[in-house]
Amino acid sequence: MSFSFQLEATCGAARAGRFLTPHGEVRTPVFMPVGTLATVKGVPQDVLEELGVQILLNNTYHLYLRPGVETIRQLGGVQKFMAWHKPILTDSGGFQVFSLSDLRKLTEDGVQFRSHLDGSSHFLSPERVVEIQLALGADIIMCLDECTGFPATYEETRKSMELTARWARRSKDYFEAHRHEVPWFEEKTLHFGCEQSQALFGIVQGGMYPELRRESAGRTVEIGFPGHAIGGLSVGEPREKTWEIVKETIPLLPADKPRYVMGVGTPEEIVEYVRLGVDMMDCVMPTRAARHGLLFTSDGKLNIKNARYARDENAIDPNCRCKVCARYSRAYLRHLYMSQEVLAQVLNTVHNLAHYLDIMRRVRETIVSGEFAGTRPAV
Amino acid sequence: MSFSFQLEATCGAARAGRFLTPHGEVRTPVFMPVGTLATVKGVPQDVLEELGVQILLNNTYHLYLRPGVETIRQLGGVQKFMAWHKPILTDSGGFQVFSLSDLRKLTEDGVQFRSHLDGSSHFLSPERVVEIQLALGADIIMCLDECTGFPATYEETRKSMELTARWARRSKDYFEAHRHEVPWFEEKTLHFGCEQSQALFGIVQGGMYPELRRESAGRTVEIGFPGHAIGGLSVGEPREKTWEIVKETIPLLPADKPRYVMGVGTPEEIVEYVRLGVDMMDCVMPTRAARHGLLFTSDGKLNIKNARYARDENAIDPNCRCKVCARYSRAYLRHLYMSQEVLAQVLNTVHNLAHYLDIMRRVRETIVSGEFAGTRPAV
Repeated sequence: MSFSFQLEATCGAARAGRFLTPHGEVRTPVFMPVGTLATVKGVPQDVLEELGVQILLNNTYHLYLRPGVETIRQLGGVQKFMAWHKPILTDSGGFQVFSLSDLRKLTEDGVQFRSHLDGSSHFLSPERVVEIQLALGADIIMCLDECTGFPATYEETRKSMELTARWARRSKDYFEAHRHEVPWFEEKTLHFGCEQSQALFGIVQGGMYPELRRESAGRTVEIGFPGHAIGGLSVGEPREKTWEIVKETIPLLPADKPRYVMGVGTPEEIVEYVRLGVDMMDCVMPTRAARHGLLFTSDGKLNIKNARYARDENAIDPNCRCKVCARYSRAYLRHLYMSQEVLAQVLNTVHNLAHYLDIMRRVRETIVSGEFAGTRPAV
Repeated sequence: MSFSFQLEATCGAARAGRFLTPHGEVRTPVFMPVGTLATVKGVPQDVLEELGVQILLNNTYHLYLRPGVETIRQLGGVQKFMAWHKPILTDSGGFQVFSLSDLRKLTEDGVQFRSHLDGSSHFLSPERVVEIQLALGADIIMCLDECTGFPATYEETRKSMELTARWARRSKDYFEAHRHEVPWFEEKTLHFGCEQSQALFGIVQGGMYPELRRESAGRTVEIGFPGHAIGGLSVGEPREKTWEIVKETIPLLPADKPRYVMGVGTPEEIVEYVRLGVDMMDCVMPTRAARHGLLFTSDGKLNIKNARYARDENAIDPNCRCKVCARYSRAYLRHLYMSQEVLAQVLNTVHNLAHYLDIMRRVRETIVSGEFAGTRPAV
């Protein structure tokens, strides 16, 4: 088995666990920074290591367009390509096809679309998406799903959810027949002395309808994936709705496998999702906000553009132990931001990631020590 | 004395030495990376330390406009502001006034100009420029000079050189009367137990006329500066002309004080300038070229955009010991560059700086060991 999930402690519905991948272990709950094009924008890989990043998310859609799948496959997979030797998860590209690309045409077979970069035409089927993710070689890969929009009627959502369920079956079948085609299969299998392959996760859809989420969960779990994601969230619905859907869906997913909520959330929200029993999350929020000068602190959000920081000698967050807070003042960081200096993005991103990862580390510690309920923030 | 220069070894005209500043020692010959707005674009200060950067150059003109002199003064000077606790040199701003700003009006008193950022009107005199540099608080500061353009007639150049000489005297007078106003004067003086102030360098002008360079050198040296720069180069003249002027001018500058050639050069050129007896150099070349994907290697220049590198697993320079070459492939760096990822700029800059600093370290070692002549590259 190249993927195994072990629970270590629970505290209410919250869980601390760990899973093993061909590129190392991941302790959960875990926050996965987003490294869209095989880079967390502006942050060198050694700094990600220093920050304690355990697993990165890369976007299949973006890597498929640049530098192309065949390039990464020939270079030994995305870990070798980006010189990140720890676990990576790739998404299916479905979300980006539905949010970024033009002229989509959806059929039972798959989805035809035009690249947002050059208008070139592409076709992705569930099988092709697994094939691409085999070539990229991340440790965890995702089934192609249809990301139902918001708002959507019950009938639209049912139709979409059923398509996702059929695609999940096709993805699994293709994956089982081709799992040995991952670029590092032989190397890792020889090294570990037993078969090492990727883990393909299923994705629960069903929009904002708990009944459809229930049906989707049942049909996805039935297929037999080593982990399950809840997709189709953060698509424009109110945040309370997101929370409600996760709350309803989590108990429907097997407790002995990791549960992954895609595309969430704020620092407060990620703690709340852990409380509901979520093990894995990813979100562009810390990295994207950093690029807009929005910094997360133990005292709330801070907009570094604000004129009040022009001569402020304090760290972004005096309670933060990251290397940015240890060295630089708000005055300097504001100057960098206002002068559109690249270092602003680099340092802001390092701080925001440190903030998220620190939260997750502390949450995990309190789950293990049985004190998690006491850390509940006001959400 | 807060500034002292000691020669350690010579090899032909080439010299190895060291000077002490209130923020630490600098071993020469030294290459100073350019940190225009109190940042070497894209590179965090801890990485500059790892690279072995001894002294940074900041641009007075840029810091004067953003974040403004009073902000930096109130924050204790540019070292504290940018959290770089080693030596810094600021230029006079003259070069930028003459190359970047609009609507310049030059008088005996100084220069009126409009900001390239917002068109606001400013006036700089030799005294004001020293006052600004006192407030910024770099360890080495420069006299305001008129940077003679290229081409320029003998008469224009003489007139300009004479103005620079008169301004140098005024700069020195103002500096001597106000040197204690540097923001860290008391702190450093108490700490060291003797007066610690900045070192004001004079600048030799005289365009492309050796006779005027000779006169300028004489008049500048007479004023009694602790170090001398050769300015007015890299202004459009052929590279051989630059070399010729430096060659003619260096012997006219006192051997017991550091000699600084401003704004040069390529990796080959900086070695040649050391051979002529130059101790200090700065240039945007390694950092600016990096941002355009031009990488310096032991085997010449490499354009990372080139399609031939798309699947090249080699380091930028297999002979380079920098952290970028230790970790990343040309294929990955090309992907970052082609995708306009910020990490491309960060990593390319780190490599190019490593290349320059490595050259200077090796050159210094060979001067000390008496083997410098043997390292002459084909220029």
